[in-house]
Amino acid sequence: MTTLAMQISGRNKLKGKVVNVVPGIVTAEVEIDIGNGNIITGVITKGSLEELQIKQGDELTALIKATSVMFIKE
Amino acid sequence: MTTLAMQISGRNKLKGKVVNVVPGIVTAEVEIDIGNGNIITGVITKGSLEELQIKQGDELTALIKATSVMFIKE
Amino acid sequence: MTTLAMQISGRNKLKGKVVNVVPGIVTAEVEIDIGNGNIITGVITKGSLEELQIKQGDELTALIKATSVMFIKE
Amino acid sequence: MTTLAMQISGRNKLKGKVVNVVPGIVTAEVEIDIGNGNIITGVITKGSLEELQIKQGDELTALIKATSVMFIKE
Amino acid sequence: MTTLAMQISGRNKLKGKVVNVVPGIVTAEVEIDIGNGNIITGVITKGSLEELQIKQGDELTALIKATSVMFIKE
Amino acid sequence: MTTLAMQISGRNKLKGKVVNVVPGIVTAEVEIDIGNGNIITGVITKGSLEELQIKQGDELTALIKATSVMFIKE
Repeated sequence: MTTLAMQISGRNKLKGKVVNVVPGIVTAEVEIDIGNGNIITGVITKGSLEELQIKQGDELTALIKATSVMFIKE
Repeated sequence: MTTLAMQISGRNKLKGKVVNVVPGIVTAEVEIDIGNGNIITGVITKGSLEELQIKQGDELTALIKATSVMFIKE
Repeated sequence: MTTLAMQISGRNKLKGKVVNVVPGIVTAEVEIDIGNGNIITGVITKGSLEELQIKQGDELTALIKATSVMFIKE
Repeated sequence: MTTLAMQISGRNKLKGKVVNVVPGIVTAEVEIDIGNGNIITGVITKGSLEELQIKQGDELTALIKATSVMFIKE
Repeated sequence: MTTLAMQISGRNKLKGKVVNVVPGIVTAEVEIDIGNGNIITGVITKGSLEELQIKQGDELTALIKATSVMFIKE
Repeated sequence: MTTLAMQISGRNKLKGKVVNVVPGIVTAEVEIDIGNGNIITGVITKGSLEELQIKQGDELTALIKATSVMFIKE
């Protein structure tokens, strides 16, 4: 028996592997390598870092709402 | 010859090619293909869409502030 | 039997029932009643509205990153 | 004589009582209990924490812009 | 005589006069002139536009959370 | 001679001079004076602070996405 299909409205989901974690007091920085030479850096709460037990090497998906994305044209 | 080096504090810069544009009244949706099977969807103002003259095939860089990034662990 | 445990770093998860949906061209407004007299209003992409097939009466969870929360003191 | 009627465009205002405060160096975490089993966690600047003199037991209203809200469907 | 002092944790409050309003279906764009040659453009919900009855010439204060601010160095 | 024209979709660009820098562990607070009595406070990552070598007296431009702007009416 299989359960589940949690769907999230946030448009952007980028899978990667944790390459760096910097815990602070309130926040923490997490960097994941999503391939193709791209690194995603996120700042989350230290509480989330601990609850999700995020550590180097973990497989994570970065979640980014479409309204948070800007574009640069050169 | 002059070189301009504009630096932006926003941590995440993902280069891609525009694959879809949906103009609305106030906002517009832009999708870029950043390779490795990843599409980035952004919602910007229609004013920005027109000012940057964004159209399918353009090379754009998605800019995302680190505090806008969440992580999912499965 | 499989159980999937997807964990999201976003701190705030508020369960409610959809009481209103306003689809636009690019974006859509969704309102959920989380009880205790509180309504949560969110603006997501129309694409997400359609993909999650959100309609009145649905049980949804609002997800809000801690860095998006301000406080008012009276 | 009473004055006032400050109106804010941010759609979501959730009243609660402060149950936890974690001051950092630049930021601070504040948690309020909004009833019905819901806790709202916010990360604000340490400067705001001090200016508003936020402490456990205070009555605060969480303010969240509609574009910062995502939805999860299970 | 009573004075009410509502304080908001959002760090940035910029007073200006409305110079342009573009209502959409779900969202609306509002531009205020804050002086010194600076215009602030905001996208809010159409519901907020109507509730606050925002129209050209109104005195408004733009409110921006510190975590939403990036910096560019040239 | 070459001219570079980097365009950013973020609507709000406010030029100022750095009047305060508070480095934390993960994040850092930067305040710029944009004239007309207005100070802009931003919280960025400590990594960005160091990469852009931001220090008091620097000329910076604050960049704020239109969807991050709220309005207050008194």
